[in-house]
Amino acid sequence: MNNKTIDITNAELVMEDIIDDLIDFYDTKPITMFDDKKQVPSVDEVNKIIDDLKKIVFPSYFSQVKVNKENAHEHLKKMLFDLDDKLNKQIRLAMLFCKKQDCDEKHLKSVCDQFIGSIPKLQNLILKDARMIFDGDPSAVNLEEIIISYPGFYAIFVYRFAHALYQLKVPIIPRMMTELAHSKTGIDINPGAVIGDNFFIDHGTGVVIGETAVIGDYVKIYQGVTLGALSTHKGQLLAGVKRHPTLKDNVTIYANATILGGETVIGRNVVIGGNTFITSSVADGIKVSIKKPELEFTEFSKK
Amino acid sequence: MNNKTIDITNAELVMEDIIDDLIDFYDTKPITMFDDKKQVPSVDEVNKIIDDLKKIVFPSYFSQVKVNKENAHEHLKKMLFDLDDKLNKQIRLAMLFCKKQDCDEKHLKSVCDQFIGSIPKLQNLILKDARMIFDGDPSAVNLEEIIISYPGFYAIFVYRFAHALYQLKVPIIPRMMTELAHSKTGIDINPGAVIGDNFFIDHGTGVVIGETAVIGDYVKIYQGVTLGALSTHKGQLLAGVKRHPTLKDNVTIYANATILGGETVIGRNVVIGGNTFITSSVADGIKVSIKKPELEFTEFSKK
Amino acid sequence: MNNKTIDITNAELVMEDIIDDLIDFYDTKPITMFDDKKQVPSVDEVNKIIDDLKKIVFPSYFSQVKVNKENAHEHLKKMLFDLDDKLNKQIRLAMLFCKKQDCDEKHLKSVCDQFIGSIPKLQNLILKDARMIFDGDPSAVNLEEIIISYPGFYAIFVYRFAHALYQLKVPIIPRMMTELAHSKTGIDINPGAVIGDNFFIDHGTGVVIGETAVIGDYVKIYQGVTLGALSTHKGQLLAGVKRHPTLKDNVTIYANATILGGETVIGRNVVIGGNTFITSSVADGIKVSIKKPELEFTEFSKK
Repeated sequence: MNNKTIDITNAELVMEDIIDDLIDFYDTKPITMFDDKKQVPSVDEVNKIIDDLKKIVFPSYFSQVKVNKENAHEHLKKMLFDLDDKLNKQIRLAMLFCKKQDCDEKHLKSVCDQFIGSIPKLQNLILKDARMIFDGDPSAVNLEEIIISYPGFYAIFVYRFAHALYQLKVPIIPRMMTELAHSKTGIDINPGAVIGDNFFIDHGTGVVIGETAVIGDYVKIYQGVTLGALSTHKGQLLAGVKRHPTLKDNVTIYANATILGGETVIGRNVVIGGNTFITSSVADGIKVSIKKPELEFTEFSKK
Repeated sequence: MNNKTIDITNAELVMEDIIDDLIDFYDTKPITMFDDKKQVPSVDEVNKIIDDLKKIVFPSYFSQVKVNKENAHEHLKKMLFDLDDKLNKQIRLAMLFCKKQDCDEKHLKSVCDQFIGSIPKLQNLILKDARMIFDGDPSAVNLEEIIISYPGFYAIFVYRFAHALYQLKVPIIPRMMTELAHSKTGIDINPGAVIGDNFFIDHGTGVVIGETAVIGDYVKIYQGVTLGALSTHKGQLLAGVKRHPTLKDNVTIYANATILGGETVIGRNVVIGGNTFITSSVADGIKVSIKKPELEFTEFSKK
Repeated sequence: MNNKTIDITNAELVMEDIIDDLIDFYDTKPITMFDDKKQVPSVDEVNKIIDDLKKIVFPSYFSQVKVNKENAHEHLKKMLFDLDDKLNKQIRLAMLFCKKQDCDEKHLKSVCDQFIGSIPKLQNLILKDARMIFDGDPSAVNLEEIIISYPGFYAIFVYRFAHALYQLKVPIIPRMMTELAHSKTGIDINPGAVIGDNFFIDHGTGVVIGETAVIGDYVKIYQGVTLGALSTHKGQLLAGVKRHPTLKDNVTIYANATILGGETVIGRNVVIGGNTFITSSVADGIKVSIKKPELEFTEFSKK
């Protein structure tokens, strides 16, 4: 693995060599060592921001404090100020880090204020998502079960807030948020995707929704569905180009279907069957399915 | 995102508006604010219940305490009483929460006792699962490696206990348990599924086993396999209907196969090849595979 | 679930029965009870080893301590000695556990030294992986975002170190490491796989790379791709046999493609389209895709 001669009686010297190599690397690769002004945002703090949002939106579900009519005002005030403080710190780091963005205090404050101001609207959207998931899942027993344990709900919750920050042009933090949800749920929604009201994801593992996807209202998606790009071999040259499909209202996409391409439009009320592979548009009101299972059945003498 | 005018000199007033909107939401959406009697079970506590079960079933693997012949009795007694206490609290919350269920102390105690009484039987089942996984995986080195690190084993472990609570008609908690395992492993087994002895899952990411699936003994399943419903557009109207397939003994299903429908029965000794899509029954002893890869090969001048 | 009669007035006796059953199990199943010499390595400690490696390789990203030119040497020295200590303890447990391996102190020390000596080389490899991921992903904004939040990068990072331990014939620990990454990312890379420079995984959920896969330089893999075995029904008899494919340099494999078989060789510059199922070799410079989507389009009157 390494062509130094390891001299066991000489361990200290070897260790010094390794340290020198590592420091050399820090010095010559500018991305690895930062000064006091340039620091990456903290994954742990971003995780805490998500936890705060859960406690603010659904206090009775996630807050350690018992929230009732008497203490709700005081509780919320404290929670919102804490959230504002955390947001301010992490967004400042992200803005300073990316340099492209100015970070005058006024702009930073305005971004945080706009985000916090959007919470009530997002709270309403998110409850509609929970209802959509409940209505569509015969194995769901009640709405509360969905809020505390369904991965599809959690991924949508995090996406809605990450997308709000993405719209405010906050760098890095939105993707950190959706990747935390991706890690927990296996559902990878890019914060840039535009998703309408009453969105439904069930099971969800393996779902990928690309950055430039546009999704209407009342759309249902099952596990393993990709809304992806046709080809990405041009890499960074494609940044900003619409590469992912558009889904109109009321579309249902069953498990493991793949829909690719920025010009692919799936019309209203379309149902896409499981395991399909779609690279061109589908008109309104069509049901698409695999022609017939092209399978071979052979008798099989078990060894 | 929100059409309030953000007046930076007037931040306090804006914050009051946001708080009012949130409290309004809590007041008018009955699902968000609970009284002292109605509280959701705690995800953290349910996670601790799973950890306790690991330490009870395989003390030498997961317990911080060194368990040996001398202290095993004392250790287990303490662990079982702790577990009983945690179960009692969370099941009480779940029962009170769902209201449909009475929560007289006698019934609650009987449920906890029956669950704890089932641990030795489940311990035996689970060790058989570990052996099945070891025997079927050429890359496995020993049984212990499977118990401490294999996701398929972990998902089956959690499912077996969640299913025991499901059979005792405990609401919410079983699904919370399997969703915790889903989050860790990408394997989504509904606690309602009925699964025989010696069950094997390898790799596992993307596996979905629906609520009404019935699986025999010695069944092997690989990553990305769905045992799902043909259509769920009727949503809650389908609650209780058998929507997911039945697999007889000795069935093997390779990666990313999809098997759908409550009337689909996969016969004994059947082998289902990778990437197949199956919506009708398969007789005993048949091997099913994709007819031939319908692929296009074009010469490709790399740009 | 269990056919003991639960007598509620007699709870103590019932509990004693359960404890007896559990202890009986420990006594009769040789795998469950260990003596002082035989203990399994700790998942928590192996997780800490990964965290240490992150802090050593990219201090400005993951270290709580602010690392700069002045304190880098001291910081690294401390980190490397801590890492050595943790490695030493866990590798000793793994070696003693598997018995096959001797664990004389000299051999153990040599293994730890060789591993730590390989860190600078792996640090270079890993930064090349990050660059490859950045160049290939139009939605990536900068390299730092990839290092702190991309699951593909994290899985490759962990794989590179796990593979180094695998090459040093350390048992159990390498798989524990890659399974920790699998749990976080949905990407399952067996530590035995041989992977060249500049490796790229995007989205990644559902990726499976088997133990005997061999992958060249500049290879790109998307979510849901399996590099697997054709059949594993011979189980442990296949241990050591090449069961997984070989990918030459510059291969791209799009989402949810499945490539199977130890004799399957994918040639240089090949592009494998999404959803393909491949069980035989492909010559250099070929693009493989699904012939045409075999789909059925039916008009669908929404109920």
